[in-house]
Amino acid sequence: MKPVKFTIEKKLDGKLGRVGILETPHGKILTPSFVAVGTKGTVKSLTPELIKEAKTQVVLANTYHLYLQPGDEIVRDAGGLGKFMNWDGPTMTDSGGYQVFSLGVAYGKDMSKVLKVTDPSLMIPERFDDSDAPRLAKIGNDGVSFKSHLDGSLHYITPEKSIEIQHNLGADMIFAFDECTSPVEDERYQTEALDRTHAWAKRCLDYHKSKPNAETQALFGIVQGGRVEELRRKSAEIIGAMDFDGFGIGGSFAKEDMSTAVKWVNEVLPEEKPRHLLGIGEPEDLFMGVENGVDLFDCVTPTRLGRNGTIYTKSGKIHIENLEFRKDFSPIEADCECNTCKHYTRAYISHLFRGKEMLAGTLASTHNLYFLNKLVADMRQAILDGTFQELKEQFLAKYSPSKDS
Amino acid sequence: MKPVKFTIEKKLDGKLGRVGILETPHGKILTPSFVAVGTKGTVKSLTPELIKEAKTQVVLANTYHLYLQPGDEIVRDAGGLGKFMNWDGPTMTDSGGYQVFSLGVAYGKDMSKVLKVTDPSLMIPERFDDSDAPRLAKIGNDGVSFKSHLDGSLHYITPEKSIEIQHNLGADMIFAFDECTSPVEDERYQTEALDRTHAWAKRCLDYHKSKPNAETQALFGIVQGGRVEELRRKSAEIIGAMDFDGFGIGGSFAKEDMSTAVKWVNEVLPEEKPRHLLGIGEPEDLFMGVENGVDLFDCVTPTRLGRNGTIYTKSGKIHIENLEFRKDFSPIEADCECNTCKHYTRAYISHLFRGKEMLAGTLASTHNLYFLNKLVADMRQAILDGTFQELKEQFLAKYSPSKDS
Repeated sequence: MKPVKFTIEKKLDGKLGRVGILETPHGKILTPSFVAVGTKGTVKSLTPELIKEAKTQVVLANTYHLYLQPGDEIVRDAGGLGKFMNWDGPTMTDSGGYQVFSLGVAYGKDMSKVLKVTDPSLMIPERFDDSDAPRLAKIGNDGVSFKSHLDGSLHYITPEKSIEIQHNLGADMIFAFDECTSPVEDERYQTEALDRTHAWAKRCLDYHKSKPNAETQALFGIVQGGRVEELRRKSAEIIGAMDFDGFGIGGSFAKEDMSTAVKWVNEVLPEEKPRHLLGIGEPEDLFMGVENGVDLFDCVTPTRLGRNGTIYTKSGKIHIENLEFRKDFSPIEADCECNTCKHYTRAYISHLFRGKEMLAGTLASTHNLYFLNKLVADMRQAILDGTFQELKEQFLAKYSPSKDS
Repeated sequence: MKPVKFTIEKKLDGKLGRVGILETPHGKILTPSFVAVGTKGTVKSLTPELIKEAKTQVVLANTYHLYLQPGDEIVRDAGGLGKFMNWDGPTMTDSGGYQVFSLGVAYGKDMSKVLKVTDPSLMIPERFDDSDAPRLAKIGNDGVSFKSHLDGSLHYITPEKSIEIQHNLGADMIFAFDECTSPVEDERYQTEALDRTHAWAKRCLDYHKSKPNAETQALFGIVQGGRVEELRRKSAEIIGAMDFDGFGIGGSFAKEDMSTAVKWVNEVLPEEKPRHLLGIGEPEDLFMGVENGVDLFDCVTPTRLGRNGTIYTKSGKIHIENLEFRKDFSPIEADCECNTCKHYTRAYISHLFRGKEMLAGTLASTHNLYFLNKLVADMRQAILDGTFQELKEQFLAKYSPSKDS
């Protein structure tokens, strides 16, 4: 018995895109779907009721954070991630491997290397909904050692350990432990890291299959390979050939060639299994991903931007603290059906931000999360209706990705 | 037509206490009732849905804060306080006069005086749900001048101006502008300040009655007089004789003689009008107040303590970050019907506080607010049932006010 079942309902003509239903132990996910990030077992500033009202179907928590605090055994003893955080829908955890990238270091190298990532065209996936990051991570072929950002304690995570932690956390969908390389690494290092990711993927799968959890938790393998076509295709072949329940597409991309990289991978991956583009979620990227066969996305932007007062609208992002909104008694968007737009004005939300009130982040995050969930749901419907291209053109004609005042 | 109607349902045998119904333009309040403080037009960390789920009947906002930010005219243009903050139940605003006390200064004196209030037995009413306070306030017989804590701008508030602001804010119940003296002032100053408060009360009432708002907003006069019996009784006589819709009892008290002061006042005030004890709300004080004829209480403690991880239980306050709660998978209180206790464990709330997550304050504040609302509702029922004394004895036998780890 497989823990998840994926059914493709309809494909996008002439493209890799598709609409599907992903059945999990905690309910169905209509795909494509946006996944809300709940780093420490809470989607920042939102109650589960608000997460659900924002039409969220699935929540992803970060293994690295929950392992350190409160500890994966506490989450296990609480009945698993969903029960712990009072979220009765589907859940995911990442593998913790992302911290390798968030440092950009390899064995024997130091953190300074990550500071070289200054090219603004490089997409850095956003998979932690805060600035916490481990310190002094060192990568070996067997695993990664790092110091906790909380107390400096030393930890060592192997592929098996990552899966063991994720078994304790108990999410419906979990990820293989991978190395997400820094885009500034040279090709020799990229190749070496990719071999390591593939070897780790196999170890994760073997360990997972040896446990009863394989019946209730789906394991997704992660494709890496940076921006190099040969590496991406090779990784998709190797990972795609393993008996995973689904796949993650990891790594960093330049904005302009992300679609190419996603296409390379999805042309190779087995069609019948779900695909998750990790840490990507700006509106324009969601169109790109859906068109190119991505089923799931997660990103911290709706909540992180929301807490800073930056709010999605159909014409681009607005900053709600701007003077123009002080006396604006209209909702963020007149035709938006989110809880925030139904009940609150721009003037009120602007006031809450000026007053540094906690409800400010709650109302802005609710709208942002709904905005992305609704956008992906609209894409889904458009594929079913055969109008995806029109939706994409209409949306992108109005939406200005750079309008972030 | 009076804006509010107060009906006494039953009296407490041999005491001043009573149970009543206060009808307002936005619904009925069953009294005695606890009033949630929403300083800047938001009860900190709670959505209106959560405020309501915590059985809150009425919300009080602070005139001083809303006058400065966003400005009372913006709240007026938004449709008034309730509409602005999406709270459809009854609302109150205080008069802004409390800032005088929060400084403890009188005309020509400076702020240093307030620093002398170090006697822990002195109850300092808690009517701002944050540490914002005006600077350099100066009291004259005509009004108070002060500098905004936000931008240093100079403001001058007279009794008429306070009412004008409160008319703009549009709450169902508003308060006369008073001077709440520092407990360290001498009796000569107290007498002088009390005369001023009485003169201001009359000016507030005259101004209020001259406006159509008197039809829709109830004006409560405030009794002052510190800890001096003669002054308290005199103030209750003078204020009680004026045509107010209800009364506030203001000022600072020593914990041990607060009940005496409240009794002095309520023996004198006209029985048929509602009475609000300003800024007081610890469980033991609620019993005292209800027994001595108080109908309404407001206090920031449920939300302020909640944000700091201090949570009410029937045996006293607990600090949820303590190590003992890390693996405690029971709710805060097993028999509590609040949204937090129905869905979350001590372990999870403890985790959220350790992780500095915003949801931490939300869950703790929800429980604390419910705890006080429920406690006052229980007192109400006990008076109806003739069992108030038993309830009080049972509760206070278990509840340790000092247990605040």
